Amino acid sequence: MALKKKPVTGMKDMMPDEMEIRDYVIGLIKETYKSYGFSSIETPCVEHIENLCSKQGGDNEKLIFKILKRGEKLKIDSAQSEMDLVDGGLRYDLTVPLSRYYSNNANELPSPFKALQMGNVWRADRPQRGRFRQFMQCDIDILGEAGNLAEIELILATSALLGKLDFKHFTIRINDRRFLKAMAAYSGFREEDYENVFIILDKMDKIGMDGVASELEEYGYGKDSVEKYLQLFKEITNDVEGIRYCKEKLAGFLEADAASSLEMIVTSVECAREAEFNISFDPTLVRGMSYYTGTIFEIAMDEFGGSVGGGGRYDEMIGKFTGQNTPAVGFSIGFERIVMLLLERGYKVSSGKSQKAFLIEKGMPKEGMLKVLSLAKKERADGKRVMIANMKKNKKFQKEQLTEAGYTDIVECYRDFVDEP
Amino acid sequence: MALKKKPVTGMKDMMPDEMEIRDYVIGLIKETYKSYGFSSIETPCVEHIENLCSKQGGDNEKLIFKILKRGEKLKIDSAQSEMDLVDGGLRYDLTVPLSRYYSNNANELPSPFKALQMGNVWRADRPQRGRFRQFMQCDIDILGEAGNLAEIELILATSALLGKLDFKHFTIRINDRRFLKAMAAYSGFREEDYENVFIILDKMDKIGMDGVASELEEYGYGKDSVEKYLQLFKEITNDVEGIRYCKEKLAGFLEADAASSLEMIVTSVECAREAEFNISFDPTLVRGMSYYTGTIFEIAMDEFGGSVGGGGRYDEMIGKFTGQNTPAVGFSIGFERIVMLLLERGYKVSSGKSQKAFLIEKGMPKEGMLKVLSLAKKERADGKRVMIANMKKNKKFQKEQLTEAGYTDIVECYRDFVDEP
Repeated sequence: MALKKKPVTGMKDMMPDEMEIRDYVIGLIKETYKSYGFSSIETPCVEHIENLCSKQGGDNEKLIFKILKRGEKLKIDSAQSEMDLVDGGLRYDLTVPLSRYYSNNANELPSPFKALQMGNVWRADRPQRGRFRQFMQCDIDILGEAGNLAEIELILATSALLGKLDFKHFTIRINDRRFLKAMAAYSGFREEDYENVFIILDKMDKIGMDGVASELEEYGYGKDSVEKYLQLFKEITNDVEGIRYCKEKLAGFLEADAASSLEMIVTSVECAREAEFNISFDPTLVRGMSYYTGTIFEIAMDEFGGSVGGGGRYDEMIGKFTGQNTPAVGFSIGFERIVMLLLERGYKVSSGKSQKAFLIEKGMPKEGMLKVLSLAKKERADGKRVMIANMKKNKKFQKEQLTEAGYTDIVECYRDFVDEP
Repeated sequence: MALKKKPVTGMKDMMPDEMEIRDYVIGLIKETYKSYGFSSIETPCVEHIENLCSKQGGDNEKLIFKILKRGEKLKIDSAQSEMDLVDGGLRYDLTVPLSRYYSNNANELPSPFKALQMGNVWRADRPQRGRFRQFMQCDIDILGEAGNLAEIELILATSALLGKLDFKHFTIRINDRRFLKAMAAYSGFREEDYENVFIILDKMDKIGMDGVASELEEYGYGKDSVEKYLQLFKEITNDVEGIRYCKEKLAGFLEADAASSLEMIVTSVECAREAEFNISFDPTLVRGMSYYTGTIFEIAMDEFGGSVGGGGRYDEMIGKFTGQNTPAVGFSIGFERIVMLLLERGYKVSSGKSQKAFLIEKGMPKEGMLKVLSLAKKERADGKRVMIANMKKNKKFQKEQLTEAGYTDIVECYRDFVDEP
């Protein structure tokens, strides 16, 4: 079989420039989230196929890279379907594996448990520009904390991180699945129609109020309900006043707790935020995953023109593993989008120290070589980046390449180098 | 299908204690290797099945986790063998993907190119204690440098890293495939028997000189050859003198270059080493992979009782992709073994700063909550690790857990907390 030079379809070779930024962002993420009391954990990239196909992953379950059974377990002759052939798959997110992890290890973990996960996930999506089949996810989750302190800490930690990366003027949109349901109930939609109503509502950004209205009517929902529903969105403001308005207007449909908790989250974040950003109550925020049970949030950034992160409360997922529900909230940032934005900005990671290169002439005697090595040793011990390379015929080009790579201090070492002071 | 709590067979959930050490070691590796001029790169975890099954991987090719084709490409009915069902696999090492990467991207990379890779690899090995089916590898490679400066830099960088991790008194064993061949030729073995002779020689550690002799004789190799061969090992010392002895004794069988180059490597490393370790010429060192073409090396550590890393020159692998050979040398350290040794030593990563926890009484009014958040904000901005948690009924246990996790400074915040100065 011929060898292939390109990476597999939809996946990417990471070049040194991009990796420099990735390594920097990874370092900053770990430092920042650890200062908020999160602990790093990791789950295997391969997960049981049963767990991946458990309806927790929504459409992502259609995109799983599945792993062939091995040895005697693989029976090609009698296999009827894919599921007969496979026993594992590459994880498509970090939330399902985290729930398995927590249910497996809860006894050894503190409660509440604040987890930080950074790891690759895989989705066999149709390849498209800027979207890859292997990408890094970066999640923080708080497990075992029912109160809104969890949401507050997640939002503060995430926004502090974005601030350190020099992102400003982003908006954290926040809503609560219970608000979504109360508004639908208040307007007279039937419970079995909620999910479909939310799918249409989710298009508000793109098709506007009128577009939502006509789509809802197309589905045959009562005109009264549609009008009552949209009237709500016209009246609700995107601040604490909007939350209070909902509390009053939706009385009887919305637990009073839900409103005061959301108000507390917004107020606390506004008071304690480290970075310059807005937090905005957005009753049109839906978030796709059906596993969310309470608060949901998303980061909108003008620079990017879309979401660069999101999350929410999923109090019922761990119970699917253990039989006993455990409160859980998570916030995931779009690591790849952030790296892309930094690359586009021409962001340069500065080590703060100059970088030195020694170029060695061909035929350098042993003593000269040892002198170079000992000079390099000293500078490296100081944390300086030092390159040692054999001098090439095209020295000019070699020096240009080194300069471009950040080696500003280039020392040419000729054969008589050892005699120099 | 029932959900499964355990990780897939042979793979591991990483607990926070171990992750703390892993994160620390990863950080130190990146810092150290970058100071030697290596650049981070990354290849996808999924590789073309053709590249993985190209006979570069030796026995590892039997252990591949294979990935099922997707969509229309998957034809279960007409599939005769595994290869009809799969188009990719999880990489089993970082060397084959690096060779593909270099052949795909050489035009955009400096020459020589010094690559640092840290990433998971997968092997469907029989599960056994301390050995996992997913594990991290950490490789540095120098591509495009034919001279022994590459070997010298790889050995200095790797040993400097081990020194920073507080490993002492390890030994770097070094040999050269050309020495191995010259010794076999000198002793009168036939070229087609070399690989088998080396496989037996490789057991010297375990079965000793006599064991090797009788195994060689069992295979029917001439008694004269066997005696002549073993006499060599008795005479060769493990230092520069041994290399010189080989140069003289094996004249006509060994390129003179090979000996003086190896001598230069040993002398340079002895002069320029940062850490306390020995470099020892070991003519019995074989290294399993058949792709090695020149220098080979391995780290022996008494503490571990085995190898914690190794590598060598593989000048012919990249040519398999490009049709044109490119000089290449790599050094891989056993990341998992190093982490295991540090865990066993009870190694604690110290942030150098105290860690603080605020425990909040139930029913804390908003003002109190905001005060806690603002206190925490200040300390986090200083890089301190700060945990905020709701106070539990069993406060004593909660405080014990926090202390164990490193939070030595625990502040209990009661409802009247806001009135305190």
